[in-house]
Amino acid sequence: MTEAAGAARVHIVGTGLIGTSLGLALTRSGGTVTLEDLSSTNAALARDLGAGETSVDVSPDLVVVATPPDVTAACVASALERWPDAVVTDVASVKVAVLGALRERGADLSRYCGSHPMAGRERNGAVSGRHDLFHGRAWVLTPTAETTAAAADLVRSVAASVGAAVVTLDPAEHDAAVASVSHVPQLVASLVAARLEHLADSSVALAGQGLRDVTRIAASDPHLWTQILSGNAHAVRDVLTALASDLDGVIAALDALGSDDDAPGARGTLARAIAAGNAGHARIPGKHGAAPTAYTTVRVLIPDEPGQLGRLFADVGAIGTNIEEFHLDHGLGQAFGLAEIDVVPGSAASLAEGLEARGWRLHG
Amino acid sequence: MTEAAGAARVHIVGTGLIGTSLGLALTRSGGTVTLEDLSSTNAALARDLGAGETSVDVSPDLVVVATPPDVTAACVASALERWPDAVVTDVASVKVAVLGALRERGADLSRYCGSHPMAGRERNGAVSGRHDLFHGRAWVLTPTAETTAAAADLVRSVAASVGAAVVTLDPAEHDAAVASVSHVPQLVASLVAARLEHLADSSVALAGQGLRDVTRIAASDPHLWTQILSGNAHAVRDVLTALASDLDGVIAALDALGSDDDAPGARGTLARAIAAGNAGHARIPGKHGAAPTAYTTVRVLIPDEPGQLGRLFADVGAIGTNIEEFHLDHGLGQAFGLAEIDVVPGSAASLAEGLEARGWRLHG
Repeated sequence: MTEAAGAARVHIVGTGLIGTSLGLALTRSGGTVTLEDLSSTNAALARDLGAGETSVDVSPDLVVVATPPDVTAACVASALERWPDAVVTDVASVKVAVLGALRERGADLSRYCGSHPMAGRERNGAVSGRHDLFHGRAWVLTPTAETTAAAADLVRSVAASVGAAVVTLDPAEHDAAVASVSHVPQLVASLVAARLEHLADSSVALAGQGLRDVTRIAASDPHLWTQILSGNAHAVRDVLTALASDLDGVIAALDALGSDDDAPGARGTLARAIAAGNAGHARIPGKHGAAPTAYTTVRVLIPDEPGQLGRLFADVGAIGTNIEEFHLDHGLGQAFGLAEIDVVPGSAASLAEGLEARGWRLHG
Repeated sequence: MTEAAGAARVHIVGTGLIGTSLGLALTRSGGTVTLEDLSSTNAALARDLGAGETSVDVSPDLVVVATPPDVTAACVASALERWPDAVVTDVASVKVAVLGALRERGADLSRYCGSHPMAGRERNGAVSGRHDLFHGRAWVLTPTAETTAAAADLVRSVAASVGAAVVTLDPAEHDAAVASVSHVPQLVASLVAARLEHLADSSVALAGQGLRDVTRIAASDPHLWTQILSGNAHAVRDVLTALASDLDGVIAALDALGSDDDAPGARGTLARAIAAGNAGHARIPGKHGAAPTAYTTVRVLIPDEPGQLGRLFADVGAIGTNIEEFHLDHGLGQAFGLAEIDVVPGSAASLAEGLEARGWRLHG
């Protein structure tokens, strides 16, 4: 249980996107990986893609349960029983519910260390697996008081060996954090988007970049999200209840303004809601988990003709400025797009000059 | 009142971002523009920037009231009285409240045609004015039954002459539309961001691109938004009330799941909320107000070393593919960024090949 990740024998239960990607990453670095899945077709596909060998007759050092969240606890409990010497982890995006179910079953929690790799999910299934899925992504470990140091160390070393940035949190802290930074934003984006469903075409045509950004994740999978939200019901409910209370305050203020133009206090409620949003927004870390960095933005108008964005890329590349962020904004009926190029303040002037010299129109 | 936009004498009341930008655009195309502002310093600054001449002793064909929204109605009423032969428009982002206040004052509505140029606001003030601010942006006209065709035509021709895409809506339709596509998304983004204000650093550090997108506009100006929301209190309240009802349903479902793992119906409520978000999201038009287009996304891993994004730009430019959208994703602690390049499906293979040939690692 204290071996280096490279020498550990890892058994993966569930060969979807996460399980297959982990198998690909570990196999690629010379690790010994075995795979199983309720669907033998899925397991064979992951094997054929190079994620490991399909076998259930194994003696793993680490078992990684990478099943859908609603069967995670049962699979972890089963793994702890099947392999009494192995460390077991899971990759579910909620942690308290899994732990509670394991406690109820009297599972051996000394060998269990829950975890949550925060890796992309835009496609599902073994066929979407990538060996580099975890590169640079956070992988949260949620050991408990019962978890042995050796068990947590093994999970940590395996996660680190596939390129993840390992973070340790208490299970309840993890669930509260993802409720605020992931589950509530998902739900709210869905609720805002849902309000567009029956809007007239001429109204929805006024959509701008703000709405696009707020609702981008509203395109997510209902089945997966029902499992995630169900599994984190308490924590999501707590954040949503606080948000609903703020929302009720805003609605009351708008009600007051609708019936009385003076409406003492109502404008203060609205201003405080927006200002609190400013303060919360300022806490979101920038790139690399660092504090938000003040970049200077160079805005470039892009004629909507074939090849213009490619031409901009070529020109920016030729100028050689190091670019921190790039954002492209198209609105309704635009003949022009607006590209926002973030650079460190000292580089903005030379980039702007270089672009203007190449015929680009800059935008304040 | 029926002259072409180029020949019309335009008087602009209020020389902030919108008024100054309009003056710059009209002056540039040879129009006759006069300016006034409550602050003579502001007006003189706009004049010095080239937005027109400062004068109140004028005989305009069109008066454009470009003041803050809370004084718009009073300024429009005053303009209708001061220039009994002129058409008057305003640029406030809410329209019913302005119209109601004008009716109360008994203003001559035959010469009034409200409007709303949906132009960027990331910076305020005359100094941020740009002659190309309206290029390709929607400019909504909200004539009433009283508005003469000639008055609406003059406003339309001036808006079109500065490059805007003119759209006509009923004032109430306009306000309901912007409530759904702009004001409610703003408030909700602020409320979600506000929930982060008191979160632990270790929790907010888990923020990913989803949260960044949902809360990007939460950085907006509380003072301006208080005016906008107050001015559209009824329509915003209606949409928020419907949203709050959906939210209550979700909270009740989470409550049920928190106390009873079976909780009949609760998972259905959650799944329907996410699915309704899918349906609403699908209605948001793509670029140019067209129906959403199915682009193929090529995902490229970007090493976090100086110059890598510039090198990508140069390579994409050299390959010559026409790029539709570009999105850059950095998460927590990432050694790599992920660039998403949207192209028409037929171009994806050649772009992917070209990038791989140049040493880039693509991502499923």
